[in-house]
Amino acid sequence: MNIKLNCDMGESFGIWKMGNDQEIMPFIDMANLACGYHASDALTMNKSVALAKEYNVTIGAHPSYQDLVGFGRRSILCSLEEIKSIILYQLGALSAFCKAHGTAVSYLKPHGALYNDMMKDENILKAVLSAISSFDKNIKLMVLSTPNNEAYKHTALLYGINLLFEVFADRNYNDNGTLVSRAMPNAMINDDLELAQRIINLRDRGYIETINKEKLFIEANTICVHGDNKNALGFIKLLKKSLN
Amino acid sequence: MNIKLNCDMGESFGIWKMGNDQEIMPFIDMANLACGYHASDALTMNKSVALAKEYNVTIGAHPSYQDLVGFGRRSILCSLEEIKSIILYQLGALSAFCKAHGTAVSYLKPHGALYNDMMKDENILKAVLSAISSFDKNIKLMVLSTPNNEAYKHTALLYGINLLFEVFADRNYNDNGTLVSRAMPNAMINDDLELAQRIINLRDRGYIETINKEKLFIEANTICVHGDNKNALGFIKLLKKSLN
Amino acid sequence: MNIKLNCDMGESFGIWKMGNDQEIMPFIDMANLACGYHASDALTMNKSVALAKEYNVTIGAHPSYQDLVGFGRRSILCSLEEIKSIILYQLGALSAFCKAHGTAVSYLKPHGALYNDMMKDENILKAVLSAISSFDKNIKLMVLSTPNNEAYKHTALLYGINLLFEVFADRNYNDNGTLVSRAMPNAMINDDLELAQRIINLRDRGYIETINKEKLFIEANTICVHGDNKNALGFIKLLKKSLN
Amino acid sequence: MNIKLNCDMGESFGIWKMGNDQEIMPFIDMANLACGYHASDALTMNKSVALAKEYNVTIGAHPSYQDLVGFGRRSILCSLEEIKSIILYQLGALSAFCKAHGTAVSYLKPHGALYNDMMKDENILKAVLSAISSFDKNIKLMVLSTPNNEAYKHTALLYGINLLFEVFADRNYNDNGTLVSRAMPNAMINDDLELAQRIINLRDRGYIETINKEKLFIEANTICVHGDNKNALGFIKLLKKSLN
Repeated sequence: MNIKLNCDMGESFGIWKMGNDQEIMPFIDMANLACGYHASDALTMNKSVALAKEYNVTIGAHPSYQDLVGFGRRSILCSLEEIKSIILYQLGALSAFCKAHGTAVSYLKPHGALYNDMMKDENILKAVLSAISSFDKNIKLMVLSTPNNEAYKHTALLYGINLLFEVFADRNYNDNGTLVSRAMPNAMINDDLELAQRIINLRDRGYIETINKEKLFIEANTICVHGDNKNALGFIKLLKKSLN
Repeated sequence: MNIKLNCDMGESFGIWKMGNDQEIMPFIDMANLACGYHASDALTMNKSVALAKEYNVTIGAHPSYQDLVGFGRRSILCSLEEIKSIILYQLGALSAFCKAHGTAVSYLKPHGALYNDMMKDENILKAVLSAISSFDKNIKLMVLSTPNNEAYKHTALLYGINLLFEVFADRNYNDNGTLVSRAMPNAMINDDLELAQRIINLRDRGYIETINKEKLFIEANTICVHGDNKNALGFIKLLKKSLN
Repeated sequence: MNIKLNCDMGESFGIWKMGNDQEIMPFIDMANLACGYHASDALTMNKSVALAKEYNVTIGAHPSYQDLVGFGRRSILCSLEEIKSIILYQLGALSAFCKAHGTAVSYLKPHGALYNDMMKDENILKAVLSAISSFDKNIKLMVLSTPNNEAYKHTALLYGINLLFEVFADRNYNDNGTLVSRAMPNAMINDDLELAQRIINLRDRGYIETINKEKLFIEANTICVHGDNKNALGFIKLLKKSLN
Repeated sequence: MNIKLNCDMGESFGIWKMGNDQEIMPFIDMANLACGYHASDALTMNKSVALAKEYNVTIGAHPSYQDLVGFGRRSILCSLEEIKSIILYQLGALSAFCKAHGTAVSYLKPHGALYNDMMKDENILKAVLSAISSFDKNIKLMVLSTPNNEAYKHTALLYGINLLFEVFADRNYNDNGTLVSRAMPNAMINDDLELAQRIINLRDRGYIETINKEKLFIEANTICVHGDNKNALGFIKLLKKSLN
């Protein structure tokens, strides 16, 4: 498999900085750019698009519930019409900066609580697909890779949209392909080397090892890396090098 | 002259209603749609674009300083980079709804304090032009028609942008083509019939009568009508009928 | 029983008006004043407190989740620490205007989704009580009158707080004291005269008639009236007259 | 003179951190706490008040124009009634957290553009004084120490308010007591040791050396230190030690 590294970027807001976009951008493949609802602002979006373009990084819209103070991590009970509208609003805003810089939005990945709600509720998934579809059918939707990928693909095709499947390489998986709950002590893989190994394995052999050492064959177009902790840069460099 | 009626529309916010968009839309030619910074929200924008399209009303973006509580009427000292970015953000957001409804943004008219600041400060004018130009050169900029129209046209052409000149038919003009200050008792024309007469005259003879009964020949692509007072609907109907 | 009329007031925001506060204030007993999170702003709060004081109306804080565009009607999944903090913030802000006008906040009634969540989740109730208690134990908490009033009183006393029980007179009740679901056709009582009769009956005999014509004896310190529909003023006047 | 160190604190917002409040709080005397309009949020305010109390640091309200994305650094043209109201709102909100923690707001220092506007426009100064006075006359107002201190004191006394005079020790002064413009290369004093010396001198001899090496005798209750740059902690510790 050809596995791309995607990373949440452009999540500063006004005077407040987040992450090391300048340093990390050269080493990732896909930048999920915040659109002003959970983070970022017009000026930051303009700079973020310019930075992504400078390093030929594919640009994705990273829309969210409207909740700056909660960073889009809190579910807000919206109507489907509201969800469709907030997706369009944010997607359009980011597209304007892309157009101004001679590039375009390639995919969309909902942020935080909206991502989780989309994976849990088919109607929300459809509202997201409907928004993208009405704007530009060339824009792909990034979703979590699960045992139900085929069903998701089928739904997406109803809207003429292609999916990108994302694996959380730093999360342990159960044998049935679901994520080990964060409430469990072994939910996360914290060792960078083990994690890199895991990702190389996924790319070369197409499976990820479950918590019971079973082989879980799983579709993976991309894995999510995090840019906002201390070792982020070193790890992303290591990963990039291993994958090339 | 062929004079179009433009009107600020889509200025509800969340649960709060403003104006009678549903009733007024059929009688105007150009709808200046709020983009979420001084009024409107994603859901309202979606509905407003649908309504404008239903009545074949030309859609304009109506971006503002970011100031919901002040309705965009208070100047905020922004950098030119910020102004360019907030224009792009709002223009892109509205464009997404237009695209979703199979239509497009035709022009842009800054709102409130941003409109006034643009008319006073050439650098702000250039920031606005630069934003539009980087997004789509087919989008026109609406400005106040003044004795300096040629200079404005010249500046706009540097950015490849065409202008639409707007006359405030309900304001009195001085002989030199400037507006009579609102501080003066005769700043406004409040009589609907006089106002309609004035607009017909402008269309047919190309001039507006100044406060001293002089003929002020003035370029007018459009005049601004207001939808949010009690007699708005009756007056706009009258005007529409007179102009046709 | 001595039944007070409480009404949501001060829910304009910036330029957007809501309700007829000026006309309704003289006829109600308790004004639930928005605190800027779902509606209102600093200037509006100042005016609303002045108006309530002018008519000797008891002032209550009406705090909400932070959600202007959703008018506080959408649940936002907050931590208990967040809930305590947003209550304190809004209560303090309103108190400042009261202090400036020589009056004080007498009670607190959470708004919209926060009110519903408080009635469903004891931990949220405790967070609200804890916030009030740490600010001023003389401030009462208004809750929905249910068959569990005694349990609520017991919980409130742990925080040294007294409760005010509110009846929704325009909602039908089941025999067990719960509200008939809004999904049912007979959830609401829409006839003003029937409603007034119902309230007088509650005051004089202490019960409300259930959907099965049973007598439901229910504690009622206050009933909620609505100021934002067309007949609001007429009905509130009628009610006020009947109760006096 | 007894010179206190004041520092802007509690300026994180949601997930975004600013400064090292935890490390700096033990070494300052007065904490200017943001109130949600330019920075901070309810949860952050609660924590900030708790932290200030833990280290016996005097708490000041640090209200601002309503402008999170601009961090309160952009002037917003408000009416005097709006200014009075936004001061009351923020002062009240912070007071609630103080009350909940068994402490109180001791002084108020407007933030950023509002501070500058207050120093330039007597009507804004009066609006600020009027807000404080209507809330609690024991709360002092912190202003910039200038050659016009007596005039400011006179104005403040009309509202029953005492002033705290603040010196910007890291800014150079002209002989006439005004600050050297930031546009000048020598506006700032960047050397920590020189700066500490300057402050000790001010405390012991009551004057600060102007740009022309003249002695400028100036009233100074407090100097402002900055907590958000790299050497902040070291410098503040040095200063604290020198002053004790």
